[in-house]
Amino acid sequence: MTQQQLTEDQPMVELTLEECWDLLAEAEVGRLAYRLVDEIHLVPLNYAVEGRSILFRTAAGNKLLAAELESEVAFEIDWFGEDTAWSVLVRGHLRHLDEVEEDRLSVLEFHPWVPTLKYDHVELTPTAVTGRRFLLRRS
Amino acid sequence: MTQQQLTEDQPMVELTLEECWDLLAEAEVGRLAYRLVDEIHLVPLNYAVEGRSILFRTAAGNKLLAAELESEVAFEIDWFGEDTAWSVLVRGHLRHLDEVEEDRLSVLEFHPWVPTLKYDHVELTPTAVTGRRFLLRRS
Repeated sequence: MTQQQLTEDQPMVELTLEECWDLLAEAEVGRLAYRLVDEIHLVPLNYAVEGRSILFRTAAGNKLLAAELESEVAFEIDWFGEDTAWSVLVRGHLRHLDEVEEDRLSVLEFHPWVPTLKYDHVELTPTAVTGRRFLLRRS
Repeated sequence: MTQQQLTEDQPMVELTLEECWDLLAEAEVGRLAYRLVDEIHLVPLNYAVEGRSILFRTAAGNKLLAAELESEVAFEIDWFGEDTAWSVLVRGHLRHLDEVEEDRLSVLEFHPWVPTLKYDHVELTPTAVTGRRFLLRRS
């Protein structure tokens, strides 16, 4: 991915859409924030990228309810190194996939890392994907 | 911290409040989710723990606005290893600290990692802190 220079004068640069998707395809864990009945939920989850969608599995519960409601959500991945860091933010809507669509996930051989029963498949269709890389000054 | 046993039959255990605060005190970066005008925001940030509060700095902008509104937020840290992982979730309200209170931050020698101007100090006062540790099955 192109590495636009970070300097003290320019401690933060926006990532291109392509850079954002490259990072999303490489990472495996992100955090999903969604709202249910005026309460904000925030959970880490492992996911897969297919095309320009984020896919994950879930059990019956709040995440699935949010998917049934086609909730607007935010999904984020980040990385913090010694001197630099980056983060990518995806906004979009959740959708509970039906059985036919679930075949898309089996093609990916995607499975949830946490070995509890997670039969339901959810797709996050992005409406906006943004990212930035920034200098860190830890001391 | 006490390591309650994770097994295939018990792939997830709740962390005690003490374990959650130990992890919060050790980590330096978390993600803050908050809502402004029906939009969910989700940003990584470095923070400090003082007593039973989460403290961070921010520039004028959405996070500060959320603090002025004493928004209800969710704040999360997590760690993913090879076989196990944990996450801690803090719920609470943001509050913009005044100048006198800011002295608490200088005691901690707390500074923001991203070298842009961040003069405002925000405290997250928890109403609930929960965490869990879980087995991972990556293949």
